[in-house]
Amino acid sequence: MYLTQGLHRVVQQRPAGIGTVCAGRVRTHAESADRVARLAAAFRGLGLRDGDRAAILSVNSDRFHESAAATLRAGGVVVPVNYRWSVAEIADSLAEVDARILVADDAFAGLAEEIRAGHGRLAHVVHSGDGPTPEGLHAFEELVAGHEPIEDARRGGDQLAGVFYTGGTTGRSKGVMLSHDNLLTSAMGWLATDGFEPGGVLLYASPMFHLAAFTTWVFSGVLGWTQVMTATYDPLTVATAVQEYEVTDLTLVTTMIQMIVDHPRIGEYDLSSVRRVMYGASPMSDALIARAMTALPNARFIQGYGMTELAPAATILRPADHEDSARRKSVGRAAPHCEVRIVDAADAELPRGKVGEIVVRGGNLMLGYWNRSDETAEALRNGWMHTGDVGWMDDEGYLFLTDRLKDLIISGGENVYSVEVENCLAAHPGVATCAVIGVPDDTWGERVHAVVVPVDGAAVSLEDLRAFCARRIAAYKAPRSLDVVDTLPLSAAGKVLKRELRRPYWERQERAIH
Amino acid sequence: MYLTQGLHRVVQQRPAGIGTVCAGRVRTHAESADRVARLAAAFRGLGLRDGDRAAILSVNSDRFHESAAATLRAGGVVVPVNYRWSVAEIADSLAEVDARILVADDAFAGLAEEIRAGHGRLAHVVHSGDGPTPEGLHAFEELVAGHEPIEDARRGGDQLAGVFYTGGTTGRSKGVMLSHDNLLTSAMGWLATDGFEPGGVLLYASPMFHLAAFTTWVFSGVLGWTQVMTATYDPLTVATAVQEYEVTDLTLVTTMIQMIVDHPRIGEYDLSSVRRVMYGASPMSDALIARAMTALPNARFIQGYGMTELAPAATILRPADHEDSARRKSVGRAAPHCEVRIVDAADAELPRGKVGEIVVRGGNLMLGYWNRSDETAEALRNGWMHTGDVGWMDDEGYLFLTDRLKDLIISGGENVYSVEVENCLAAHPGVATCAVIGVPDDTWGERVHAVVVPVDGAAVSLEDLRAFCARRIAAYKAPRSLDVVDTLPLSAAGKVLKRELRRPYWERQERAIH
Repeated sequence: MYLTQGLHRVVQQRPAGIGTVCAGRVRTHAESADRVARLAAAFRGLGLRDGDRAAILSVNSDRFHESAAATLRAGGVVVPVNYRWSVAEIADSLAEVDARILVADDAFAGLAEEIRAGHGRLAHVVHSGDGPTPEGLHAFEELVAGHEPIEDARRGGDQLAGVFYTGGTTGRSKGVMLSHDNLLTSAMGWLATDGFEPGGVLLYASPMFHLAAFTTWVFSGVLGWTQVMTATYDPLTVATAVQEYEVTDLTLVTTMIQMIVDHPRIGEYDLSSVRRVMYGASPMSDALIARAMTALPNARFIQGYGMTELAPAATILRPADHEDSARRKSVGRAAPHCEVRIVDAADAELPRGKVGEIVVRGGNLMLGYWNRSDETAEALRNGWMHTGDVGWMDDEGYLFLTDRLKDLIISGGENVYSVEVENCLAAHPGVATCAVIGVPDDTWGERVHAVVVPVDGAAVSLEDLRAFCARRIAAYKAPRSLDVVDTLPLSAAGKVLKRELRRPYWERQERAIH
Repeated sequence: MYLTQGLHRVVQQRPAGIGTVCAGRVRTHAESADRVARLAAAFRGLGLRDGDRAAILSVNSDRFHESAAATLRAGGVVVPVNYRWSVAEIADSLAEVDARILVADDAFAGLAEEIRAGHGRLAHVVHSGDGPTPEGLHAFEELVAGHEPIEDARRGGDQLAGVFYTGGTTGRSKGVMLSHDNLLTSAMGWLATDGFEPGGVLLYASPMFHLAAFTTWVFSGVLGWTQVMTATYDPLTVATAVQEYEVTDLTLVTTMIQMIVDHPRIGEYDLSSVRRVMYGASPMSDALIARAMTALPNARFIQGYGMTELAPAATILRPADHEDSARRKSVGRAAPHCEVRIVDAADAELPRGKVGEIVVRGGNLMLGYWNRSDETAEALRNGWMHTGDVGWMDDEGYLFLTDRLKDLIISGGENVYSVEVENCLAAHPGVATCAVIGVPDDTWGERVHAVVVPVDGAAVSLEDLRAFCARRIAAYKAPRSLDVVDTLPLSAAGKVLKRELRRPYWERQERAIH
């Protein structure tokens, strides 16, 4: 399987159909594919060779789509960049994967010099914005206009298609290597779970650099759908685009669903075209699902659980499962493309109902972490991806998440690893020691919460800590709440007992849900 | 991806659901999987090692399913045998793939000694029938009862999963090697074209050894469906099983649809449970589709076109396409897992509307022909499978078949290569020279038709030729009609001009359709 295949098919079957809609630009599938083939030629001209990495640092746009497709058509590997990261984080990751080309839009082209300073081998920066192209950068439209279309390199199968950076347990991000088959296996499994019609209109309501949205790019390509991109995805932007372009399919994190359906002006918009809402990151409460079904009267809801390393889907909660309030608290059952098990520390499968680590096997398992063979071997030991998530499974295979081994906080759909925030806070002169946990939050699903033991006599405030973090890590990783304490609960081995810290917050949540 | 994955999933999700129904035996998914795991242990005990071939010579049954699944679980490769072949043909193919185990049911266990005589290395024959086990054969149920379940070898991806014999252009059958990914790619693409629900009930209405049925075994496994097997599949057997087991999904060749819907007693059966009919081999006429929709009021119709080398699907005519009479004459459009093109003799793509050879590319392309690297390279040149079928494509990518390069006749869903029948007829003492073509037939789609120039003074009859063929080739390959002529039309190079022979028959057909 190869990711560019769908583009050939849609040009053959619906050349005059709408391919992309973005910022007032409407392009047919034939036009869009022609631009991709020209841009691929340009990328080859800039020196991109088979397997070379091209990074994309951009808000959602038609040119994000074209850049990713052109990279693959040219035989390259896509590296979508999390634009919420600090410049240092971005430069580090691009240096690590040795990106040869960076595509950056108006919002980020200004960072090009800084990124280049941190990654000396970055040969070319392509400016994909609508504003004037800064000195030293290539103008996207000039590249497209100045090249003749080239044939598709048709790399595929087990070959590397993309590197997707994800937070690391050691406090450094890891590049997850996904092959064409990895991404397409997950996408095809997803498509096998509902009647996905040709002729759909997909709106990206979250950043395309995230695999949760990128996987919809993959299966939208398989189906030859229309893609609608907006630079932002606040509730009214989403509602406006849905109404204007008769959007049929939306991918959202639960937090976004809540922000949309609870917006005071949402009733002014016609959302009746939406037939499917795909969401993830956290389950929906009974109250939220009821409100969502009212606001989106024709939508079927599908929940996915997974992770970047799983390309990304592991379990799926189907539309019919949503009718059962108990099942809605689960993340669904193993998707049609993989196996899911609950195991003990020795990797032995546990009986149904017992809590243990969730492990996954299938054609969607990542090739590995970029340049990290030890961590790859550890994550994929015995042929199963060890998710680091903890849960149990009922007698019908429904999976319920209970905890995370890896100290991962999912806040507004973003992964935040506690250790990275702790490392940052520990550098603050007023902090003696600290622990960072995720606690329930009505808006963000979870929020980053810091528990700090101050240096003797020091006064530590949340504002002070957030300002300190702002210069070092992405804003979404900074604590949103703070407890100042005298001591942290420790295990006999001296490890912070995070479950002790988390318990009071999550117990309250349990009561609120039940 | 691996073919045994779905069995693990269904045991996890619906252990007490019905897995197989056959000959009065009803087994749950858990029971069926347990038997597979025991039989896999038995196969290992009989010496089956990773990648070794196990052949199945059996009418449709639950034990066919168990044998195939156990072979894969044990790490082996499945070789489903066309039981319509002559014993010599069967022994030749099993010798070629060096099958170590043969599973044979009551109808065929008696041939075991003869087959063994033609394939000395066949180590074990397992008797899967309900009658007494012949001397020297292993009893299926004793093997199941006498072994403890073993773990799944979980071979998968590009590893060989099955060898499927198909007629050869050179008059000898070729073993098509398909990997786990080949078979699953085609199956997942098929599943992406309609809303395939869990909880389906599949009835095999054609022999499971055929890839057309075997592919439904693959996707039925992905979805964890109930499988219903009957030893025969005449119209009333099918109708009885549909009514009794509330069958939801049927795979048929067009010939079978016609036989079912036109049966005088079909109105006595309740076929309302059928929600989907998947068919292939030839398009349905307007009159037939109208009758079929009446007989199967709740069914959606999906047509597939493909071949064994494509694992097998290349194009799909979706339910909605059936509403358009012109499109119904096509075989649909490229499936979501592959690309389809029309090319000239130099492999250059032809403009829409031009007639040329149909070539296909995707993750479903066979690994190759068993032990035939030259023919493999020829078939897969430039990365595309050259189907040998001739057709054209309209502006929306719908594919219309017009002819076959390879002299292939598809009669009742069986592939018959002219050259094989010609070789056989040429050995008859009364035949001077001959040509075999496919001509339109109301019952069989196409029938095998012989055009014979007799030896001077010899009298040649159809009955005589059929009797002669019966001892040498499968019955379905023997001519069903005959023209005796003085000379055959020849090209300047001395080749028989088969299009000249075919024209009068197919012109009549065209008139009948339009």
